Amino acid sequence: MFEAAEIGHKMDKAAYAAEIPALREALLEAQWALHADGRFPVIVLIAGVDGAGKGETVNTLNEWMDPRHIRTIAFDGSSDEEAERPRMWRYWRELPRKGQIGIFFGSWYTDPIVDRVWGKTGKKALALEIERINHFERMLADEGALILKFWFHLDKQSQRKRLEKIDADPVMSWQVTRADWQQFKRYDRYYAVAEHTLRLTSAGHAPWIVVEGRDARYRQYTVGSVLLAAIRKHLEQRPMPASGVALPELPADGRNVLNQMKLGRKLGDRKYAHELAQLQGELNQLARSKKFRERSVICAFEGMDAAGKGGAIRRVTAALDARQYRIIPIAAPTDEERAQPYLWRFWRHLPRRGRFTLYDRSWYGRVLVERVEGFCQPADWQRAYAEINQFEQELVDAGGILCKFWLQVSQDEQLRRFREREETRFKHFKITEQDWRNREKWPHYELAAAEMIERTSTAIGPWTLVEAEDKNWARVKVLRTLVERIEVALDRS
Amino acid sequence: MFEAAEIGHKMDKAAYAAEIPALREALLEAQWALHADGRFPVIVLIAGVDGAGKGETVNTLNEWMDPRHIRTIAFDGSSDEEAERPRMWRYWRELPRKGQIGIFFGSWYTDPIVDRVWGKTGKKALALEIERINHFERMLADEGALILKFWFHLDKQSQRKRLEKIDADPVMSWQVTRADWQQFKRYDRYYAVAEHTLRLTSAGHAPWIVVEGRDARYRQYTVGSVLLAAIRKHLEQRPMPASGVALPELPADGRNVLNQMKLGRKLGDRKYAHELAQLQGELNQLARSKKFRERSVICAFEGMDAAGKGGAIRRVTAALDARQYRIIPIAAPTDEERAQPYLWRFWRHLPRRGRFTLYDRSWYGRVLVERVEGFCQPADWQRAYAEINQFEQELVDAGGILCKFWLQVSQDEQLRRFREREETRFKHFKITEQDWRNREKWPHYELAAAEMIERTSTAIGPWTLVEAEDKNWARVKVLRTLVERIEVALDRS
Repeated sequence: MFEAAEIGHKMDKAAYAAEIPALREALLEAQWALHADGRFPVIVLIAGVDGAGKGETVNTLNEWMDPRHIRTIAFDGSSDEEAERPRMWRYWRELPRKGQIGIFFGSWYTDPIVDRVWGKTGKKALALEIERINHFERMLADEGALILKFWFHLDKQSQRKRLEKIDADPVMSWQVTRADWQQFKRYDRYYAVAEHTLRLTSAGHAPWIVVEGRDARYRQYTVGSVLLAAIRKHLEQRPMPASGVALPELPADGRNVLNQMKLGRKLGDRKYAHELAQLQGELNQLARSKKFRERSVICAFEGMDAAGKGGAIRRVTAALDARQYRIIPIAAPTDEERAQPYLWRFWRHLPRRGRFTLYDRSWYGRVLVERVEGFCQPADWQRAYAEINQFEQELVDAGGILCKFWLQVSQDEQLRRFREREETRFKHFKITEQDWRNREKWPHYELAAAEMIERTSTAIGPWTLVEAEDKNWARVKVLRTLVERIEVALDRS
Repeated sequence: MFEAAEIGHKMDKAAYAAEIPALREALLEAQWALHADGRFPVIVLIAGVDGAGKGETVNTLNEWMDPRHIRTIAFDGSSDEEAERPRMWRYWRELPRKGQIGIFFGSWYTDPIVDRVWGKTGKKALALEIERINHFERMLADEGALILKFWFHLDKQSQRKRLEKIDADPVMSWQVTRADWQQFKRYDRYYAVAEHTLRLTSAGHAPWIVVEGRDARYRQYTVGSVLLAAIRKHLEQRPMPASGVALPELPADGRNVLNQMKLGRKLGDRKYAHELAQLQGELNQLARSKKFRERSVICAFEGMDAAGKGGAIRRVTAALDARQYRIIPIAAPTDEERAQPYLWRFWRHLPRRGRFTLYDRSWYGRVLVERVEGFCQPADWQRAYAEINQFEQELVDAGGILCKFWLQVSQDEQLRRFREREETRFKHFKITEQDWRNREKWPHYELAAAEMIERTSTAIGPWTLVEAEDKNWARVKVLRTLVERIEVALDRS
């Protein structure tokens, strides 16, 4: 991969002077068009060896274009707010909005490569990170992002010279630290790990562009012209997402996990009161335990309208200290959320350690309401299953305890509850025209939910199907499941 | 203030049982009405002595109402992201949205009171904090927020008993730490400081409600019923902001700071090139200096349309490492921003230490475009002067270096630049119908700007008036001012 960037590429002064004014003008125009278009963000990664002009290139791009619509984000050590969440959280929170250019100086590649070079991680860990990165970039591209990854390369000899030169310059020498020289000693190993990583993460939708870093004019012109061509082309294309394999709409026999549930399950009031108190006590103890300070709980509540999600959530939170949890009710996204990839609005609320986030409706909206109501393309919800599984894997890998509840009621019971809501003074806020319209689409929702459960009930994130015809039964089942899952997780840690 | 909360208030079980169901129902209904109304947030502060049932009350409120529309925020130590910004930043970022209830467990009162009790701060520092808090709450109230501040009180004897009781309970004893007992030893001093602080911060728009904490039923019922009555009343009132004193629209002689500027100032190209390079070099050095790591720079760029704000900003950023600055272009607020007090969208982008935030248009929009175009009520922009001065005081108190630039061009020059933008291919994005419409209101904008400068050019945040008819002159003046202000600030630190 790097051979082509060791052949002494350069651009002479005259050619550069001739090309740059037009390039700058065109870049500025492309940038404004991108901003006006507003359909996708541009994500530019700047990576590579030290001394190859990464920082200078970032500054040049900011100078050439309108810096007001560029976000340059440098990643040093994690803040404590970042360190307590999944590793990718800090990148998610900095993603540029649609219409913006985000320049990532340091990125999700830095740690995996550096850790491997220094032997902090093994081959398998790197392989896993590479897989994760590929999923992430695939998702970004599917959401419309234009991704360009620039790798600045220098052959060994040139890097030594470059570091020596900077080191000797009194104005520049601060840029070269002892760590840089330490790093240089590992040049060969760095070369090998980087080559391996780049090879396995170079994709049509997120290509690596290796740039020889010896000549400033050459590397600046290269980056600028690649960026220009890519933005122009991406603006021309109306993204046409490819649909997944077409599957028949129903299982042949009409049976699915939901319509086979035994909804008749019940719990008498006395037994309910006893079990509720017992389980709430246990949950309270677990949430206050020392081990829990290193973990977090993420719950997704889904289910048919009026299945009792809110009531179940309140029985959970009643056992917790209010300072320890947040409930995130999911309604229509805000415009800041709409300007980001679909999962962004869930990432932003992930809990710190020792905390609970309870999502009242969740990231599964993509394959439920958005699918049924046609709010997204078939290709979008079809790819969502894999994206969601990946998301949940990251939660669990970071110590999150994940619980997903599907609350099911019969159509008759739903009708009864809708009517009750209409008639009860302080419940009439809870029923809208939309609820009645959704009800008419019951078979579609049931089909979507059944398929969702089939495709996303995994070892790390199993769905708990909750018979919710009887509220007592449902609430106790939710609490018991939660207590058991936390117990198991804490026992293992 | 506390005497009335030492008389043994209580509520017997029967009365409580009789009242609570209706209270809960009414609270739930008020909460839904608040949510549907969406015009204002409810901010509930829970403060007071340890052992008086603060935590329990927070949990009870969450249990009684719909916890999905409550945000409970507890404040422990600051995260590093918080510690590097003005003290109020952590409260701003957690403010509930309009239609939401935010319960603050621990608040902007905690540190000022505790620090004074332990002698970490003197009388004057407390007085300053109190003044700051009053400004902040006044601003919140003026923005429509309903503010209720509950102080849970226990007389000395009762607090001792309460702490002993909790300490002896094996399940509860974790709640009482050594620090709590240490705190108790200072009961009298705490009493005095708290009484002083409450007295000076109890306002009609943000009242303190002192609640005797001995009886759980009494305190829960009190908080619940106060909250209910306050929400109901606030919902009924269509807020009718009182206008400030009516002032005549123009100075008698028509002279103002802007139309008296000498716009003929110029700088030749050679001199410009020389000075620009010199100043950019100085700025670069300053930004990389060790002392600057503890400071930050906040710049506001305002001016007539086409006065050259963007160009001036780019001459500043060209001197900086792109990782070190962010430019925030201010356009229409997002809906998340609209659901917050006016200044929230500026608070959210404040830089960490060692960084620059450059606002391309700023918080002064309130007294410029919003005033002229009638986007807000007269009362809103009239109070904004004081709010802005307060905001800037906080920036500077936290080590921020604040620079405010007004770029002025003549009407003729603006016309020339508008036409140039229309004719130049890569500049036509920069001119819209709106710009032409604004131009027609030139006298109104000039009047508003002149009044703004008069009222907000302060010792800590002076306005720099920049003659921008000649771009060379303007850019050099901006850079020179910035360099000088940073130099002065670093010399002093």
